[in-house]
Amino acid sequence: MSDRLERQLAFLLEADKLKAIERRTPLVDNSRQENSAEHSWHLALAAVTLIEYAPEGTDLLHALRLVTVHDVVEIDAGDTFAYDPAQHASKEARELAAAERIFGLLPQDTGAQLREWWSEFEAMQTPSARFANALDRLQPLLLNMHSGGGSWRSHRVARGQVLHRMNPIQLWMPTLWPFVLDTIDRACGMGLIVDE
Amino acid sequence: MSDRLERQLAFLLEADKLKAIERRTPLVDNSRQENSAEHSWHLALAAVTLIEYAPEGTDLLHALRLVTVHDVVEIDAGDTFAYDPAQHASKEARELAAAERIFGLLPQDTGAQLREWWSEFEAMQTPSARFANALDRLQPLLLNMHSGGGSWRSHRVARGQVLHRMNPIQLWMPTLWPFVLDTIDRACGMGLIVDE
Repeated sequence: MSDRLERQLAFLLEADKLKAIERRTPLVDNSRQENSAEHSWHLALAAVTLIEYAPEGTDLLHALRLVTVHDVVEIDAGDTFAYDPAQHASKEARELAAAERIFGLLPQDTGAQLREWWSEFEAMQTPSARFANALDRLQPLLLNMHSGGGSWRSHRVARGQVLHRMNPIQLWMPTLWPFVLDTIDRACGMGLIVDE
Repeated sequence: MSDRLERQLAFLLEADKLKAIERRTPLVDNSRQENSAEHSWHLALAAVTLIEYAPEGTDLLHALRLVTVHDVVEIDAGDTFAYDPAQHASKEARELAAAERIFGLLPQDTGAQLREWWSEFEAMQTPSARFANALDRLQPLLLNMHSGGGSWRSHRVARGQVLHRMNPIQLWMPTLWPFVLDTIDRACGMGLIVDE
C-alpha cells in the first residue's frame, strides 16, 4: 500500500471518533444527545434541501465539503456549547491544535486543503461558508423546538442569546428569518426559552 | 411560512430519525453499533478524501449528494444486512414504499430529485454512483477490521461472501483492490472472517 493511501485511510479511521462527540442538542425524539458526525450529515441534507435560500455565489459542492469537515476538530477539542462564553474564549486555540494534528494525518496536499476548508467555515466570509453557518444555526433550532426545548431549556437560555446566535440566518438566509422569529416567540411562550 | 418551506423543514425533521437506524457494523472503538446517519457522513468524508481514486467521469458534488440521501429510506425500511440473502430479497419493495412516503414529504420538484438520486445510487450505473457504492463497501471493511471483526465475526461471514460484497471496489476503485485483498487475508488469518 502506498504511503499516501495509508495516510488517507488512517485519517478516515481517526475521523470515526467524531461519532462519539456529544452535542448539547438532543434528537427530535429526545432519546439521547446528538453527536457531531450525524449532525454534520444532517447539515449536508439541509444544504441539499435548502440550497434555493442560499446567499448569491454559494457553491453547493463547496458548501457540502465545508459542512462535512467543519466539526472534525472536535475529536480533540470537544463540542463547544454555543451558549457558554467561557468555553468560547478557548475554542480557537483548542481547535487550532486539533486541526494541526488531525488534518496532519493526511497527505500534505489533502490535509492543507481540508484545513483550509475548516478555517473558511469558521471565518464566515465566503457565500458557501455563510450558507453552511446559517444551516449550522438553523438545525439546532429545529431540534430544540421539536424535542421540547433541548439545550435551550436544560441551560436556561434567554431570548436575546438565541436571537444573537441565529444572526447568520437573518444575514444570509433572510427568507427564513420570519420563521426563526416565530419559532423563538413560540418557544418563549411555551417556556422553552427564557423570555427576558 | 410558505407551504414549500414548511414541507422542506418537515422533511428535515423526519430525516432526524435516520440517527436511530442501527447498522450491523460497530464503531472502531467497539463501544456501540454505527447508525445510518453518521455512516452517511463518514462516506461523505471518504468521498472528499479519496476522490483521486474515483472512476473517470465522477462528479464529486453529485457523489456527495448521492451518499447524503442514499440511506434515508431506511427510516421506514430499516438497514438491510449486507450478508443476509432473505432480507435482500424484500429490500427493493420495502425501500420503494419508503422512498414514496419520505421523499413525498418534500415539495414535488425537490422530492422527485432526491428520489432520483436514491435510485441512481442503487442502480450503480453512473460513475458517481459507482464511486459512492465502492465507498459504501470500503467503509464497513475498515470498521470491521479495526473493531476486531465487527459484523463479519458476529455473523460468521465467509471469505467468498466478503469478496463478493467488495466487488464494486475491484470494478470501480481498482487502485484500492490490493489493499482490500490484503485486509481480507489478514482478517481470515486472525479468524475474523471464516476462511473456507
